[in-house]
Amino acid sequence: MKHRIALAGICVAAAGAAFAIGPSDREKPPTTSQVMESAKPEDWRRPDPANTLYMDLPGGRVIIELAPRFAPAHVTNIKQLVAEKFFDGLAVVRLQDNFVAQWGDADKTRPTESALRKLPDENIVAWGKGLPLVKLPDRDGYAPETGWIDGFPVGVERKPSGQAWITHCYGVLGVGRDDWPDTGSGAELYVVIGQAPRQLDRNIVALGRVLRGMELLSSLPRGTGGGLGMYEKPEQRLPIKSIRLASELPAGERTAIEVLRTDTPLFTRYVESRRNRRDAWYIVPAGHTDVCSISIPVR
Amino acid sequence: MKHRIALAGICVAAAGAAFAIGPSDREKPPTTSQVMESAKPEDWRRPDPANTLYMDLPGGRVIIELAPRFAPAHVTNIKQLVAEKFFDGLAVVRLQDNFVAQWGDADKTRPTESALRKLPDENIVAWGKGLPLVKLPDRDGYAPETGWIDGFPVGVERKPSGQAWITHCYGVLGVGRDDWPDTGSGAELYVVIGQAPRQLDRNIVALGRVLRGMELLSSLPRGTGGGLGMYEKPEQRLPIKSIRLASELPAGERTAIEVLRTDTPLFTRYVESRRNRRDAWYIVPAGHTDVCSISIPVR
Repeated sequence: MKHRIALAGICVAAAGAAFAIGPSDREKPPTTSQVMESAKPEDWRRPDPANTLYMDLPGGRVIIELAPRFAPAHVTNIKQLVAEKFFDGLAVVRLQDNFVAQWGDADKTRPTESALRKLPDENIVAWGKGLPLVKLPDRDGYAPETGWIDGFPVGVERKPSGQAWITHCYGVLGVGRDDWPDTGSGAELYVVIGQAPRQLDRNIVALGRVLRGMELLSSLPRGTGGGLGMYEKPEQRLPIKSIRLASELPAGERTAIEVLRTDTPLFTRYVESRRNRRDAWYIVPAGHTDVCSISIPVR
Repeated sequence: MKHRIALAGICVAAAGAAFAIGPSDREKPPTTSQVMESAKPEDWRRPDPANTLYMDLPGGRVIIELAPRFAPAHVTNIKQLVAEKFFDGLAVVRLQDNFVAQWGDADKTRPTESALRKLPDENIVAWGKGLPLVKLPDRDGYAPETGWIDGFPVGVERKPSGQAWITHCYGVLGVGRDDWPDTGSGAELYVVIGQAPRQLDRNIVALGRVLRGMELLSSLPRGTGGGLGMYEKPEQRLPIKSIRLASELPAGERTAIEVLRTDTPLFTRYVESRRNRRDAWYIVPAGHTDVCSISIPVR
């Protein structure tokens, strides 16, 4: 039984195996494995090192892609914090089950150099025709439209608000903040580790997502403080060795990584293969998916 | 910042504090904390010990409520396996990030006594007017209707199929199976630990949910086998000390637990407080929720 339920997961690990489409296979739409097997080099992209963070934890490296289009001031400020080595020696301070992993300057004691502590509101960006939305046709209860922009999951409300925003899906990076009108500075960051908390959309700055290493955060012990998952004892906090921008490192110290592009015909086929699973294991295709249920393959 | 994002989570821990509604508070709908503060003893229920499993792991106890209405033969068989102490000494064998934790007889080597290895299909139950559906008004992409029956999250399709089923939300318990028409026996079980894999709905038997102790499963190290989260080395497997039915244990060894009822006016107010968050932290209420985003409080 063990390998059967697994078909529900993405199996990009199989991409190395040869795959031959037989006569009967041609008649039905492809499975996810078949779609991924047909991917060409140009269906993949290399994230810009200038927008890629490496968070090195005792257990390994978490790789995060930043989304400057959605929160340019906050992304700039996070890069400045990283340049100041602000996060080095700080810690993961909070693990709330089915919600978030959070790290940074929880005690608000670490000084900054030129990084800012107050920033403009960037919870949303103005919708405009220049935004390269790859639309997901499936309806969504939280947003009139969903899809992907620059490879990030997004919600869009063309009217009346004229807004677009990154949706809080598993692995999305956000900026911890105090009560409005504080918008946070990036000195505290969180990543979604459970069911997509879409109620956070448009309430807080979301500006990236984890490409690799989610398990280094999602498998940490849950905290018990205040019913909020705070680590109550200093020794429970997981120290951050460093956070660096990939572009700061010599090429030899960077992690080679590619992400499936979301603006290709192949990605459309990939989404369809997730909407209607056609692996032998499935008996009832869902006929539906949602933006947070589409994991974007990384290799 | 640490306590602010936390408002997005459920804070039943605050239930012990006195709460006074002031004049201005009366004018706006209550927050989740206010709703929970107003709960009366009859808004809570005690799960039936005859349908409550205790899975004792090295780190503590996972408490699972079974849903006999949705899969009577499988629930009966799991109870028989438990009576045979079938799971004692078996292990958690699989942790796939953002998907499932799975345990049981992965090697298919453990004999059973009178427990069965083949069972009828119980992926769905027939919809009927006798089913006490508490309907969630928000639309859902995977099912024509969603809501709760017996405290479990459900999907319903009255026509044309006339089906109801437990939806695969965070913490839901399911029965591992091989390719159809195998339906599994309960010798392998899994729990959802990430974004709700609703594509599994109606494809596999879902028959319960974790009431307490999710963090004992969700924080386990992820496996690396086959891209499926299998633990590849025997020593990675987490041994199960025992699985028992609460009713088998002397009253003194049972864990006192109460679950918020889903069939009350209070629960309706609770859901509304989750649909439109009115805590000071929020600036844009979502105006929407979905069945897998409603965590049911347990105390």
